[in-house]
Amino acid sequence: MPEAAPRHPIAVTMGDPAGVGPEMAARAWEARREQGLPPFVAIGDVAAIETVWNGPVARVGDMAEVAPAFAGALPVWHLEDSGPLTPGRPTPAGATCALHTLETGIGLTRNQASAALVTGPVSKHALHGIGYTHPGQTEFIAERCGVTAANAVMMLAGPGLRVVPLTVHIPLAEVPDRLTSELIVAKARIVARGLKRDFGIDAPRIAMAGLNPHAGENGQLGDEEVRIIAPAIAQLAAEGVIVAGPLAADALFAPGIRQQYDALLCPYHDQALAPFKALHFHDGVNLTLGLPIVRTSPDHGTAFNIAGTGRADPGPTIAAIRLAATLAAVRERSCAAPR
Amino acid sequence: MPEAAPRHPIAVTMGDPAGVGPEMAARAWEARREQGLPPFVAIGDVAAIETVWNGPVARVGDMAEVAPAFAGALPVWHLEDSGPLTPGRPTPAGATCALHTLETGIGLTRNQASAALVTGPVSKHALHGIGYTHPGQTEFIAERCGVTAANAVMMLAGPGLRVVPLTVHIPLAEVPDRLTSELIVAKARIVARGLKRDFGIDAPRIAMAGLNPHAGENGQLGDEEVRIIAPAIAQLAAEGVIVAGPLAADALFAPGIRQQYDALLCPYHDQALAPFKALHFHDGVNLTLGLPIVRTSPDHGTAFNIAGTGRADPGPTIAAIRLAATLAAVRERSCAAPR
Repeated sequence: MPEAAPRHPIAVTMGDPAGVGPEMAARAWEARREQGLPPFVAIGDVAAIETVWNGPVARVGDMAEVAPAFAGALPVWHLEDSGPLTPGRPTPAGATCALHTLETGIGLTRNQASAALVTGPVSKHALHGIGYTHPGQTEFIAERCGVTAANAVMMLAGPGLRVVPLTVHIPLAEVPDRLTSELIVAKARIVARGLKRDFGIDAPRIAMAGLNPHAGENGQLGDEEVRIIAPAIAQLAAEGVIVAGPLAADALFAPGIRQQYDALLCPYHDQALAPFKALHFHDGVNLTLGLPIVRTSPDHGTAFNIAGTGRADPGPTIAAIRLAATLAAVRERSCAAPR
Repeated sequence: MPEAAPRHPIAVTMGDPAGVGPEMAARAWEARREQGLPPFVAIGDVAAIETVWNGPVARVGDMAEVAPAFAGALPVWHLEDSGPLTPGRPTPAGATCALHTLETGIGLTRNQASAALVTGPVSKHALHGIGYTHPGQTEFIAERCGVTAANAVMMLAGPGLRVVPLTVHIPLAEVPDRLTSELIVAKARIVARGLKRDFGIDAPRIAMAGLNPHAGENGQLGDEEVRIIAPAIAQLAAEGVIVAGPLAADALFAPGIRQQYDALLCPYHDQALAPFKALHFHDGVNLTLGLPIVRTSPDHGTAFNIAGTGRADPGPTIAAIRLAATLAAVRERSCAAPR
C-alpha cells in the first residue's frame, strides 16, 4: 500500500510520444506494488505505450475509472492519435499530442479530478517547431494556473536533499545582474510556504549559498553577498522566514552541513544542479512550488537516443509519482489550506 | 604495509600551530598501520603537537632518522618555538612558524630528501598579518619551485572523482572574461601530463564542463562554449590531448557519466567543488599539478573553532598522505620522467 495515498488518482502525462515518457509510465505501473505507488493514469497516445510495451492497458475516459482498473492494468487516457510513431523520432504530430496531453493533465488537476500532475519529458525543440513559445513546461503550467512564471519556483528533491536554483536557464554572465534582493525574497517566501504546505514542515530550515567562491570572503571575492544577499536574508528574517547564509556553496553541500537544512537556495543553475545530480541522479524529482496544484516531474529529458530500447531507468518517474502522492496527501490533510 | 611506498619519507607540514594541523598529523600516525601509511615526518613546533596529543614523539633532525623511528613514535622535525600556544587562537609567532615550516618542507622535497610534500592548513589572515602576500600556499610553493602560479594547477581528488577548477578565487562575475581558450589549453595540458606522470594513466580520459547551464544549448544560453571552449578543445585535440565536451555540468557529475573520465575540467570554483565536496568531503585531497615536486594537502582549513577538541576528522590528512605516497612512487618508477 502507498505510504501516503491521496483521495484521487494522479495524472501522468506521457510527454513526447517518441521519447521515453510512455515506457517510463508503463514501467512505473509494473513496479506499483513493490514501490507502493497509488493509482495513476497515463495520458497521451495509447499507441505510444503499445509500441514499446506489451503489458495490459485499460483505456479510461473518466478519472473515476482509474482506481478500479489500476490493480490489473495500466490505465491510459487516450487523447489522440499522434500519427506514425518511431521511438526516438519526434514529429510535429507528436509534439501537438504532447501539448494537448499537458493541457489535459493541467485541466484534470485544476479540477481536482486528479490529485496531482506528473509531467513526462517533452522536446522543447519539437514544441517550438509547432509554435510553442514557452521555455519549458513549467512556464506553461504556471500560465494555465494563473501564476506568473516568476512565481513558479523549481525545486529538485531527493531523499536527502532539496535544492532551489534562484535563476535557471540564463547565461552565467547574466547571473550577477539578475540576482536581486527582490528575487531572493520572493522565491524564498515561496520555498518556505511550499515546505510548510506541501512537505508538512512546520518550521522549515533554509540555507542560501553565496554567489561567489567562499561566499565572497567578506567582499574580497565579490560583493554580491554583502550588497544583495545579506539584505534579502535580513528582510526575510523580519518577515519570519529564517534563511541561514550566505554560505560557501562547496561547504554547504558537504554531508554534515546539507543535512541540517530542509532546502538549499542557490543563486544559479549549475551550483544547485551539479551537486544534486551527483547525489540523486536516479531518484531526483523536479517539482514546482508556488502553484495551486501539485506538480512533479522526473528529472530527465526525452532521451530519444535510448527510447524504445528498454534501457531507460524508471526510477525518476517512480520517485516523481511517489513524491506527488505524498505532497497531495499533505495538502489534503491540511484541507483549510488554499488551493 | 603501504600499497605504494616511495623510497623516502613524506614531509607533512603542521600548518598553523593553533589550527587542527598538528593533531591531524598525530592522528594520521596513530592510524598508520590500519591505513597502510608510509613513513612521514611532521614539521613545525613540537609543542603544537604535545599540547593536543599524548602519544610518543621522536624528534628528528635528518630525514634518514624518520623511517627507523616511525614504527614506535611520530617523527617530528621541530623547527622553532612558536611561543605561548592556545589551540584555536592564531598568533603572529604561529604564522611565522607556519611559514618557516612550509619553506622547510618545500626545501626537503625539492632536495629529494622527502618524497613528497603534504601541507597542513594555514590561516591566510594570520599569514597576511606578518607580510605574506600570496593568496594561498600553492602560489608560494610554485614560486619556490620556479613555476609561475598560473602553471600550478589545483586538482581535487577523491576515490571516484578528480576535478580541476580552471579559475579559482575570483568573483563569479569575472569568470566569463577570465575563461580564455589559452587558459583552457594551458591547464588541460598540465592536467593531461599530471594524469600520465603522477597517476600513471597512459591515455587519460578528460572531460570539460560548459560555463553556462546545459553547456549553453548551442549558443542559446551563452556563447562561451562556441566561442572559447570548443576552439580550445580543438587545439588540444590537434596536440593529441583529447578532451570531451563541453558537457552540461549537471549531467557530467551524474554517476554513470563522471565515472567515464579520469578528470573533469570546470570553468569555475563552485561548479567543481560543490559536487566534489558533496561526494568526497571526508576523503578529498587537494593536490597541485605542474610542479617539480609532489604536493598534496587535506581539503580543509585550520578549523580554529574545533582545534584541540579532538573533533576534527583525520580522514582527509590520511588520504592526502596516502595519495602523496602513491604519486611519489609512480614518479619514482618512471625515473626517466623529468622532476
